[in-house]
Amino acid sequence: MNLLKAASFIQSHQSFYLAAHQSPDGDTMGSCLALRAALLAMGKEATVVCPDPAPKNLAFLVGVDTVTGTNGIEPPKEAVIFVDCADHKRTGALQATLESAPYQFCIDHHGTNPRESKDGDWVEEVSATGELILRLLNELRVPITHGIAVALYTAIATDTGNFAYSNTTAESFKAAAELMQYEIDLSELNRILFREMTLAKAKLVAYTLGHMELSEDGRLNLCAIPESVLNACGATKEDCEGLIDDLRDIDTVEAACILKESDGVMRVSMRSKRVCDVAAVAKRFGGGGHLRAAGCTLELPLKEAVRVMRNALSEALA
Amino acid sequence: MNLLKAASFIQSHQSFYLAAHQSPDGDTMGSCLALRAALLAMGKEATVVCPDPAPKNLAFLVGVDTVTGTNGIEPPKEAVIFVDCADHKRTGALQATLESAPYQFCIDHHGTNPRESKDGDWVEEVSATGELILRLLNELRVPITHGIAVALYTAIATDTGNFAYSNTTAESFKAAAELMQYEIDLSELNRILFREMTLAKAKLVAYTLGHMELSEDGRLNLCAIPESVLNACGATKEDCEGLIDDLRDIDTVEAACILKESDGVMRVSMRSKRVCDVAAVAKRFGGGGHLRAAGCTLELPLKEAVRVMRNALSEALA
Repeated sequence: MNLLKAASFIQSHQSFYLAAHQSPDGDTMGSCLALRAALLAMGKEATVVCPDPAPKNLAFLVGVDTVTGTNGIEPPKEAVIFVDCADHKRTGALQATLESAPYQFCIDHHGTNPRESKDGDWVEEVSATGELILRLLNELRVPITHGIAVALYTAIATDTGNFAYSNTTAESFKAAAELMQYEIDLSELNRILFREMTLAKAKLVAYTLGHMELSEDGRLNLCAIPESVLNACGATKEDCEGLIDDLRDIDTVEAACILKESDGVMRVSMRSKRVCDVAAVAKRFGGGGHLRAAGCTLELPLKEAVRVMRNALSEALA
Repeated sequence: MNLLKAASFIQSHQSFYLAAHQSPDGDTMGSCLALRAALLAMGKEATVVCPDPAPKNLAFLVGVDTVTGTNGIEPPKEAVIFVDCADHKRTGALQATLESAPYQFCIDHHGTNPRESKDGDWVEEVSATGELILRLLNELRVPITHGIAVALYTAIATDTGNFAYSNTTAESFKAAAELMQYEIDLSELNRILFREMTLAKAKLVAYTLGHMELSEDGRLNLCAIPESVLNACGATKEDCEGLIDDLRDIDTVEAACILKESDGVMRVSMRSKRVCDVAAVAKRFGGGGHLRAAGCTLELPLKEAVRVMRNALSEALA
């Protein structure tokens, strides 16, 4: 592990761009902004750059208003650190600009990272890049402020689904314990990170749970959402995330399936709990995925697609 | 703190009843069953007793099938430990039987505990009694098994709302980190503890989000549920929990209000985020509560109750 290399990269430079990946999430934003605050405290220059704006629900992160996008970005003067970017491509429209930097380093937790930053990297498969940044700040002996603690907690909590995904380890909890010393308002933070939803999302949940159809003694749960409903709700792609989990969460359900109409095709997502191999079902229709989470696309009218998926999943459950 | 007293109470006795409180939750059940496993491993006799059956979603806890209720319970031979019981009354129909025990001790985390167990107590205000049991097992040098780890994790995770309530401390996270050494399947456990819902609950969520009415530029969100709907959904009291949070979670909302019709009266729950004093509103109608969570009961027909609450909350938001 290259913690010392990362610390030394920081110590040997004065001016930094900290690069967050496109479609930024809590880990890339929290990690970048925590590192920015630390570098500023060390008397260095640091700017967080990201090809996309930060999601609205991260507006509470200290410094998020300084994040610079593609608009009028100046070429990097000295050093760039790619933070939580699985590869350089994840910096999207900023990639070429960032790769023109004289010095480049990468700090990331994706095992697949190709380690393409020319002056080195610290890639370690932990739950979140935020865990690495916390270790780095401790190594650099930068005092953790309340703002840094909130940013790193956000990084770790979001990338572990609030300590619920299988990537969560003892280390994730230890990091959280350490950060809790800095008076994080957990209850408010959790509300913002994990509960807040748009009106469109609420309408979609109401539609989905109101129109789902259980069969196979409640073991199969299926819902189709016509494009007209998606439009009437004003739903974005983000708003549709998690609906499939709601369908699966009913206690009798073993397999859940959601079909979303989009540009005349039906996009199908499936989940299962313990028995049903939904990847095999997806494969039959040219899709793919994992044993418990898979998807495919059907070029069929909505009602026909529903019939096809119900039959296939009923068979898989038999 | 009386950790040593608790350890010595256990060491000086051979036969134990471990008393869980009525309407048992993850903390009382997880703590009792973890302690039971430890006592059995020490070669002692231990039976978990509880006036009510364990909730269905805790069926995975090792030993939950041995929990003894009021039916044919024998008088305690030697020692009783009240676990997570804020007072002896919380053991409901078992109280008299348990108080007939020759030796009685209490382990609990409720600051209000009257410390009425005659041979002493260990009451310490931590996030969950499960935290205390973990310290106790370490003190007793009982090896933590996978089953014990899952039970204690369940105790802590449920009483902190998955590390989201304001009672969560660095110690809660440290305990979780320690328990993670024993290969807990976090993703499955989280699904069972925090996501699984009944069909009745899903129907209620669909109704609530489908019939809510936003006003005051989306800052007020109100929904009334007629008794006929509650009945049609087959909803229990438990199924109704959390609906008010769903109403509050919409991003524009500052104050949420749910009115549930029950035996001809309207039971009103209110929540707010940052500004609105819902306790003051509840007080106007003979209710009470906290600044951000309060309730009252209105002896009015549904439509009239909705009008009254909307007016009162609109005023409070003005």
